[in-house]
Amino acid sequence: MKTEYLDRIRCASLRGRVTSAHEAARWIKDGMTVGMSGFTRAGDVKLVPAALAERARTEPLKITLMTGASLGNDTDKRLTEAGALARRMPFQVDPVLRAAINRGEVMYIDQHLSETVEQLRSRHIAPVDVAIVEAVAITEDGAVVPTTSVGNSASFAILADKVIVEINLAQSAGLEGLHDIWIPKKRPLREPIPIMSADDRAGTPWIAIPPEKIVAIVLSDQPDSTSSVLPADSETAAIADHLIRFFEREIEAGRLTKELLPLQAGIGTIANAVLAGFADSPFERLTMYSEVLQDSTFDLFDAGKLDFASGSSITLSPEKSRQVFRDFSRYRDKLVLRPQEVSNHPEVIRRLGIIAINTALEADIYGNINSTHVLGTHMMNGIGGSGDFARNAYLSIFATKATAKGGKVSSIVPMVTHVDHTEHDVDIIVTELGLADLRGLAPRERAEVIIEQCTAEPYKSMLRAYVAEAQQRGGQTPHVLEQAYAWHTRYSETGSMLEP
Amino acid sequence: MKTEYLDRIRCASLRGRVTSAHEAARWIKDGMTVGMSGFTRAGDVKLVPAALAERARTEPLKITLMTGASLGNDTDKRLTEAGALARRMPFQVDPVLRAAINRGEVMYIDQHLSETVEQLRSRHIAPVDVAIVEAVAITEDGAVVPTTSVGNSASFAILADKVIVEINLAQSAGLEGLHDIWIPKKRPLREPIPIMSADDRAGTPWIAIPPEKIVAIVLSDQPDSTSSVLPADSETAAIADHLIRFFEREIEAGRLTKELLPLQAGIGTIANAVLAGFADSPFERLTMYSEVLQDSTFDLFDAGKLDFASGSSITLSPEKSRQVFRDFSRYRDKLVLRPQEVSNHPEVIRRLGIIAINTALEADIYGNINSTHVLGTHMMNGIGGSGDFARNAYLSIFATKATAKGGKVSSIVPMVTHVDHTEHDVDIIVTELGLADLRGLAPRERAEVIIEQCTAEPYKSMLRAYVAEAQQRGGQTPHVLEQAYAWHTRYSETGSMLEP
Repeated sequence: MKTEYLDRIRCASLRGRVTSAHEAARWIKDGMTVGMSGFTRAGDVKLVPAALAERARTEPLKITLMTGASLGNDTDKRLTEAGALARRMPFQVDPVLRAAINRGEVMYIDQHLSETVEQLRSRHIAPVDVAIVEAVAITEDGAVVPTTSVGNSASFAILADKVIVEINLAQSAGLEGLHDIWIPKKRPLREPIPIMSADDRAGTPWIAIPPEKIVAIVLSDQPDSTSSVLPADSETAAIADHLIRFFEREIEAGRLTKELLPLQAGIGTIANAVLAGFADSPFERLTMYSEVLQDSTFDLFDAGKLDFASGSSITLSPEKSRQVFRDFSRYRDKLVLRPQEVSNHPEVIRRLGIIAINTALEADIYGNINSTHVLGTHMMNGIGGSGDFARNAYLSIFATKATAKGGKVSSIVPMVTHVDHTEHDVDIIVTELGLADLRGLAPRERAEVIIEQCTAEPYKSMLRAYVAEAQQRGGQTPHVLEQAYAWHTRYSETGSMLEP
Repeated sequence: MKTEYLDRIRCASLRGRVTSAHEAARWIKDGMTVGMSGFTRAGDVKLVPAALAERARTEPLKITLMTGASLGNDTDKRLTEAGALARRMPFQVDPVLRAAINRGEVMYIDQHLSETVEQLRSRHIAPVDVAIVEAVAITEDGAVVPTTSVGNSASFAILADKVIVEINLAQSAGLEGLHDIWIPKKRPLREPIPIMSADDRAGTPWIAIPPEKIVAIVLSDQPDSTSSVLPADSETAAIADHLIRFFEREIEAGRLTKELLPLQAGIGTIANAVLAGFADSPFERLTMYSEVLQDSTFDLFDAGKLDFASGSSITLSPEKSRQVFRDFSRYRDKLVLRPQEVSNHPEVIRRLGIIAINTALEADIYGNINSTHVLGTHMMNGIGGSGDFARNAYLSIFATKATAKGGKVSSIVPMVTHVDHTEHDVDIIVTELGLADLRGLAPRERAEVIIEQCTAEPYKSMLRAYVAEAQQRGGQTPHVLEQAYAWHTRYSETGSMLEP
């Protein structure tokens, strides 16, 4: 073994477990449940899944795959193409897997990201047979030091009988010490989560497991897949502007200070752009208590706006990644990565009072949000952590562009075709056209504000007409049921929600 | 003042504040926000609201009314008929108010019951000008001892500038000591809720407020309205049977012990009957961590099955009420009443691992639940605490009879017309026909189990045909959008969901 590996596998008794990805993959048998590291493409295992996909091409091998969240490195694609996925949870973003899910070939269990290991611990879902976890190092005691994400890795490794570790030499050794691994006890011995602010640490910087559970170690030097978020555009900038002005008004009203409250921003282009827009804001000494830390987190650090960021993963664009990891000591003391059960835990979110900014696929006139299902049927990605945050946030904000498909689709519709977040969990809806402040409003009032503030013409007029007809029929939440999805069925037939 | 009142108003300096309901009601002005005690008809204020309604008949007087949950004593009816309600939150059950809400005359803000005072504390909704709280006594220090509910009374009294107290001599003095008032601090000073089991006490047995805030005291001797739940019938007994057998299987599988986990049961006939059914079960040393304690709680105490019950109110039938309060010392040490923010708090619910049993108005084939809106538009009661419990429960169970209106309505439909609880928050659906265990299932699998286990013919065959057609079109959650509400629109037109 090369000398550099000795630093990475400090538990001498485990050095003999180093093997090839192909050999390590043999621990996985047909029908098993496998828990892999990886959250928003960060810190995923890379070589063993690829070896597994190769094996599945020549022998019967179908697994249930659990992860933190989405994987990079085409792992979901490869496993899908090899027919190796029977079941998949709790989140994915891969186009090939998505198509297989929508054909009904892979059973996809879309979950609140804080809940997967809760269900495992309660044995409501099948146990993890083998955990495969990416690490920067294994300590003297055999504990595992994660890389750019924690996700569900710690609980997978703790709950599984067998653990395979991929030591990734391409991941900065400087990541060691960044993580805070705290795992709830089983009920009825469970105690409060000892986190009172975003920068509190409650656990250990490694995943403590009996070293004998580590059945194989694979050496890798393959970097994380980089983020695919798009740069800010005039519409995302307008959304950021509306939010900045809203927060300024909240400060004037004495409800917030310039430090705001800990911020969460969902993965993706819009939330990232909104947060990046805060670099040009009057806010200061901001903190984040979020799940994924994207480019915008480091933009805000560099702008001197952000004091501390807590997350479960770091997912960056290629350029940002080079810059951040070249100079990681600048950021290290301002960061912590936690298990997703903790980053997304209702208890901590409610206690800290998070400002949650997430993205809607479509919103309806009463403030219900569809984050996942195109035309109510076809899965896009999954609910992810949005529900964990939206339900318990101090302020739950959903952002979307007012239209899609060159104006042929309105993001504000009479009735969403799938509900991920009910009106109770939505305080603010913001598009490039304006911001609807829904706090304390009844449904009929919500409809008026959403239509007038957030909706593009000619949909605005069409929604006014819908509401007028619906109110003729009465109700707390007036609808014309036989017309509620007329826009969507028209889109299916004609390619546009517009009346011909 | 009669001697017996001296025991009830122990703060001598406040005795001069005793006045008539009519005089006390003068503190309430047109346009004010009024916070009243009352939760599931228990512990509501009785005389001042009646005086207020009388005044509103002769002068302009419209208020925003906040409560814990539903009121008894026709208070909502009287205030509605007097035109005194501009806005109402967070819950109601009154037929007259309901009709006014559905006509759009009263703006009704239907809320998760744990969240109302969170929004008040954050000033996201208008502040409470006057709190009116029912009490059994005022202590030497001027602290208020609630009666049969806590609800939001403590926070209303703490946050309002002026407090009116109705001392109710008809409420047992033995209630004193029953309550545990613990209120979260403002952020960022908020700490964990120090409750680790259903019988933990964290606060004081009274609501501590500066006595000078008490501007009027009214003496009352009007009892609480009694519960209107119906007795168990063969269908609710069958639902209870299915659940008991399910829990027996969970015990066999080693996932639960005979003590189960703390139980929550929603208000109403079905949940009450299900819980009462546990008197004839093999379970023992049960505990409850619930919001309303109904007849069934005391049935289980009497059957020796229940060790402790935590709630926010006690709402009983006339016979049960007589029995329980005649002999209250038998139960007192086994009970605690908490603010609804604590009884329903996500932090505690998730920590303790609650088994939550709530009622569905309708469920769909994918497990989404409508608890509130008839035909998607007309409010029945409100979401109440069901969302607080369902989201964070160890097991989230929804019960409903398979059909309603003599079979003309199926409680299982292709797509619910309003979503209160998404499929992510629903583990079990149970009807008199059977139990659907949805844990770990993808939507297509959920549909099969719900249709086969829970649905009555001919709806079962109709749903099978719907699913077959929907699956032709594909998707994670297959639907035929233009047919999704065909059953509901047929019901509106013909009075039946059945095909003619």
